Amino acid sequence: MAELRPTIADVAARAGVSAAAVSFALNAKPGVGEQTRRRILAAAAELGWQPSARARSLSTRQALALGLVAARPPELLGADPFFPSFIAGVETVLWRTKQSLVLQVVPDAETEEAAYRRLAGERRVDGVFVADLRRDDPRIPLLGELGIPAVTLNRPGGPSPFPAVCLDDRPGIRAAVEHLAALGHTRIAHVGGPVGLLHGVSRRLAWEEAMSEAGLDARACVEADFSAASGAAATRTLLDLAERPTAIVYANDLMAVAGMSVASERGLRLPYDLSVTGFDDMTLAAHVHPALTTVTADALEWGRTAARLLLGLVAGDRPDDVELPPGQLVLRRSTAPPL
Amino acid sequence: MAELRPTIADVAARAGVSAAAVSFALNAKPGVGEQTRRRILAAAAELGWQPSARARSLSTRQALALGLVAARPPELLGADPFFPSFIAGVETVLWRTKQSLVLQVVPDAETEEAAYRRLAGERRVDGVFVADLRRDDPRIPLLGELGIPAVTLNRPGGPSPFPAVCLDDRPGIRAAVEHLAALGHTRIAHVGGPVGLLHGVSRRLAWEEAMSEAGLDARACVEADFSAASGAAATRTLLDLAERPTAIVYANDLMAVAGMSVASERGLRLPYDLSVTGFDDMTLAAHVHPALTTVTADALEWGRTAARLLLGLVAGDRPDDVELPPGQLVLRRSTAPPL
Repeated sequence: MAELRPTIADVAARAGVSAAAVSFALNAKPGVGEQTRRRILAAAAELGWQPSARARSLSTRQALALGLVAARPPELLGADPFFPSFIAGVETVLWRTKQSLVLQVVPDAETEEAAYRRLAGERRVDGVFVADLRRDDPRIPLLGELGIPAVTLNRPGGPSPFPAVCLDDRPGIRAAVEHLAALGHTRIAHVGGPVGLLHGVSRRLAWEEAMSEAGLDARACVEADFSAASGAAATRTLLDLAERPTAIVYANDLMAVAGMSVASERGLRLPYDLSVTGFDDMTLAAHVHPALTTVTADALEWGRTAARLLLGLVAGDRPDDVELPPGQLVLRRSTAPPL
Repeated sequence: MAELRPTIADVAARAGVSAAAVSFALNAKPGVGEQTRRRILAAAAELGWQPSARARSLSTRQALALGLVAARPPELLGADPFFPSFIAGVETVLWRTKQSLVLQVVPDAETEEAAYRRLAGERRVDGVFVADLRRDDPRIPLLGELGIPAVTLNRPGGPSPFPAVCLDDRPGIRAAVEHLAALGHTRIAHVGGPVGLLHGVSRRLAWEEAMSEAGLDARACVEADFSAASGAAATRTLLDLAERPTAIVYANDLMAVAGMSVASERGLRLPYDLSVTGFDDMTLAAHVHPALTTVTADALEWGRTAARLLLGLVAGDRPDDVELPPGQLVLRRSTAPPL
């Protein structure tokens, strides 16, 4: 009779609210008023509804697996150092608990909804990680509706019923701008990630704020897509400016390394003619020439913490958000006073 | 009564052979004599044994997932461009067939046997990929014993009951040596992968053979472990030689990029004072300075082909080995005639 177990949609219909509101209310998260919350809890009690996480943990049909859906072209997955490191961190926890990670790569945002519905519907996973948060991310209401435990990497822009593991990228970017300003740079440009991604926006805003605090104009900014090729193209644009920048703060290492190569090809001597900073501290950052000044972002630890939090949630805990220490600026050889 | 279905161990016991021999015989692979093969088939017929792949495909309990077990420290997984690209290739096939990839990272070879036993025993996957083949790889007899369909990346050294997707890395390494010899280099060193890995050995042997064919001494060779740090250390060793090499053929790009950085720090001008070649053609290879001359290794296509082959095997096909086109030498700016 498992099919007759009331769903979150049944509770929503009875209470006259959205499925997302039910999920918010049952997870004791802000986003619904107290009166609505009481009505929802009453409806859930009348129907005998249980949060899926608990139902699952009591069930023998636990999947003993966690899921990660990545919506990006497969060609890009191979170049991004974040995902493999994050996955490695998740696995350091899962192999001890004898659980597995189910990975699903879909080519774009359109196909990801189907992927989540299948993972939840076929009970392939007990919970999911939500990375690469977007503005008005459609996955938050979707996962609320599906009633599947989830942990987000950073907090979504709007209200969310899910716990988050946060790593603030702004202090690192601010530290990079302050370091360059202290060296005497005034024309400090930014090559940013896509503005559709929250971490693309937050790094750009951090650069703007730090520039403003240093009394500098935050005008030379090019939006790119975190790929090496886009970083190279953005660097060409910046180096073509009449008043070319003497320093560039990149939103990730991949774009920074590609930008350094563009500058070298144009005969600029790094770091004297151009200072460069990155973000991620990927393994190769210390092994390029000049070694890259960058901001650490401990993807491995992020994966570990997110895995522990999600396993707790699946087991019926109601974990709080976790705030990881922000990344640190690592000074190497790619930054120097301007000539 | 599913528990009473005869296992490969039952067939082995009845025929008086090893489980691996049963697997070889039933998959029509070399490795057992004709007489033994007949005895095994007779035992299997008497017991009513069916190959697991077929039994699984007829069963309603198909996992609809394929598995990949990676035995390496999590810290290294994040730096290696091969795995994410291979996984991305696998996913381009799986998301269309609505299957999932179950990924298990274990810290070392000791824990991987337990991981395979669990994936097979709990029927979490219908088949597995076997990468990073080692000398006398214990996974071949293990997977034969477990009766789980598998596809190997390249052929193991010994006999194997499993189909393989092969990508010969030797022509690319030979082409790199020939290119450097044609430019006039005579002191061409090699920074190799671990000799415990088949592709570490095959690249080293290809370098030795090509050196010998060019009439050059193949003496300056340092074993490293494919990591950037090990590539940097090996490069320091080579540059400290009394007769330092004028060119280095690296077994992968990560080590080559790290080596270029070591050479630049010592004041060598690339490519004039030192020519460098890599292997993999990772995304960043075209975006370092000087851009890296390297050998393509289409990990994405390898993943696609391996996924198709394994899905076929799971569905009851008996696919042949597939030979992918060998990688090509891509000439960029990191190689030039010696000064």
